[in-house]
Amino acid sequence: MQFDKHNALIVRQAEPFNAGPPLALLIANSVTPTDLFFVRNHAPVPEIDVNQYHLQVDGNVRKPLSLTLADLHFKFQPVTVAATLQCAGNRRQELSAAQPIPGELRWGTEAISHATWTGVRLRDVLLEAGVSPDDAWQNHVALTGLDETEREGKPINFGGSIPMEKAFGREVLLAYGMNGQPLAPVHGAPLRLVVPGYIGARSVKWLSRITVQANPSDNFFQTHAYKLFPPNICEETRNWEAGLMLGETPITSVICSPHPALRLKPGLLELQGYAMAGGNRQVAWVEISADEGWTWVRADFTNDAQPWSWRLWRARVNVKAGQRQLMVRAVDSAANTQPPDIMQIWNVHGYINNAWHRVRVEVRP
Amino acid sequence: MQFDKHNALIVRQAEPFNAGPPLALLIANSVTPTDLFFVRNHAPVPEIDVNQYHLQVDGNVRKPLSLTLADLHFKFQPVTVAATLQCAGNRRQELSAAQPIPGELRWGTEAISHATWTGVRLRDVLLEAGVSPDDAWQNHVALTGLDETEREGKPINFGGSIPMEKAFGREVLLAYGMNGQPLAPVHGAPLRLVVPGYIGARSVKWLSRITVQANPSDNFFQTHAYKLFPPNICEETRNWEAGLMLGETPITSVICSPHPALRLKPGLLELQGYAMAGGNRQVAWVEISADEGWTWVRADFTNDAQPWSWRLWRARVNVKAGQRQLMVRAVDSAANTQPPDIMQIWNVHGYINNAWHRVRVEVRP
Repeated sequence: MQFDKHNALIVRQAEPFNAGPPLALLIANSVTPTDLFFVRNHAPVPEIDVNQYHLQVDGNVRKPLSLTLADLHFKFQPVTVAATLQCAGNRRQELSAAQPIPGELRWGTEAISHATWTGVRLRDVLLEAGVSPDDAWQNHVALTGLDETEREGKPINFGGSIPMEKAFGREVLLAYGMNGQPLAPVHGAPLRLVVPGYIGARSVKWLSRITVQANPSDNFFQTHAYKLFPPNICEETRNWEAGLMLGETPITSVICSPHPALRLKPGLLELQGYAMAGGNRQVAWVEISADEGWTWVRADFTNDAQPWSWRLWRARVNVKAGQRQLMVRAVDSAANTQPPDIMQIWNVHGYINNAWHRVRVEVRP
Repeated sequence: MQFDKHNALIVRQAEPFNAGPPLALLIANSVTPTDLFFVRNHAPVPEIDVNQYHLQVDGNVRKPLSLTLADLHFKFQPVTVAATLQCAGNRRQELSAAQPIPGELRWGTEAISHATWTGVRLRDVLLEAGVSPDDAWQNHVALTGLDETEREGKPINFGGSIPMEKAFGREVLLAYGMNGQPLAPVHGAPLRLVVPGYIGARSVKWLSRITVQANPSDNFFQTHAYKLFPPNICEETRNWEAGLMLGETPITSVICSPHPALRLKPGLLELQGYAMAGGNRQVAWVEISADEGWTWVRADFTNDAQPWSWRLWRARVNVKAGQRQLMVRAVDSAANTQPPDIMQIWNVHGYINNAWHRVRVEVRP
């Protein structure tokens, strides 16, 4: 574990920069301070001349657009949305402990953060380009960033797509502000997409182009990366077409405190953590067990329910002396549950681990 | 098991009438023939004079409406939507076998069916009443049927509500037609709501009134019935406020064939069944195991993917001689999974059983 020189983040990869906050700081605030917001980059942060910057809007649109930042600021209604973003690889470490997942970042439970985002609605820009929600029902909106990397020996930009139905959601923003400040370069300045309820990868940073098209993006990060496969599929048997292109995330919950390294005393123990529902769903409840699932205690929420936002929770359980396992599980507003066993959802690239989160602690009188 | 005199349905309750199709017929067609469509009634079918019938639209609307059937037919755009409806109590039998659930219907796996629905969009009627999607963001749409029953000693009409956001969905219909025919009395004639992706109870039949209001309906079937509780909550500890008002359903899958009573021979066995994702989600894949979950085989879909619609599937697995358990599980487009163990989701009223479905069969050479 390595801390960044410039802030308190735990660095998972230095180049490109990938880092997240220490767990105690992660749950200290319902709104994550910008310096602590997790960073997931696939390439170096691009250098962008904001005066030359244009956002292209093209494809199946009646009126293609080329918008300056001033156009975005002054020609559209500014909107602020609070939203939690979570990397599809959050909690990969638990999956790769069960069976190795080479070539992917070993995120702990810290690849999630919550911020307020300010910008304009993607729908308003699409409407300005002459897209009608009626004829666009089946379309997709492809997104391209200015960050450049390499895949299969060729230079590519990061990209992806979301269904038009989602693009017309009132919550999807072209954001130029974060937590009341101008967006920082590492978070996608001057402009990024924010797609609440979806895996973080669809919230394309350093956004340069929006293309309306009949099919999902053919960008590597839509067609190959960020695809889910059943547990029995390995690299050799993987058929890219048969994978699920990830979009909405499922319900998850995590114990952030106590830390497993702590020595604990028997008796009443306080646990804290977060829970997050995907799509437009809400966390219905969070439950804790300290006795291998025989009994469960309902946690209390310590922040208010808000659309597109995580819930922070606190619970007290009695722990006896010995090696104990603390477990958390949550249910969402569509009655979705978390899988008890990590092997039920293990997958070759280690995405979307939402198994019951378990922390082993040592309790000594 | 009792068959209805007039058709092939298995009757779970004669009065009020509650019945569903035999499983072999259920999966014989992607579109369930109307005579086989499951019936969930809470009261006798009301007698309605179609010439006197009016739909009231009131509450927080700029222009209250009183619409005749002719108004609905000729003043709004007719729309047809294919949608699967499923009772929240589907598969309760498995839950009540684990621990009794008195006072609720013991549905097997047949309280689900698929039809095409014709009518007008609820959103079009709400727009006509002067509701704007913009000011109505937080509101609910309460629905009242003409069917009368009794709860806690008082006569009440069946009712419920859906969030305004869902009410504005293009898929939510005021339906007067089913499978290309006028709606039958037992299915809600002359007019019912159809809320794809939600528990069947919100698709209120014999609809008489639509009320726009700040809060969910205070009807018994919204505030008490159709509420989900964690497994450890019993009738004595149940706090109605702490339950989840059911709306969207979670991913489920069921083995309809082979029937458990059949004698099977060792070797390649064909299984058939259905899978259904809730909300606006899709079934990503369906997997079968005949060896207690050690290996899983991916099923083939036998009907096309369509929004709001179930998938029928077929799979072949090798079975060895002995008492064998066949299991099915599915994953949806938001990476939601089904719980392996029924006790993880057992609840006091027996709703939303989406545990891995298991069929025990005897295999003899």
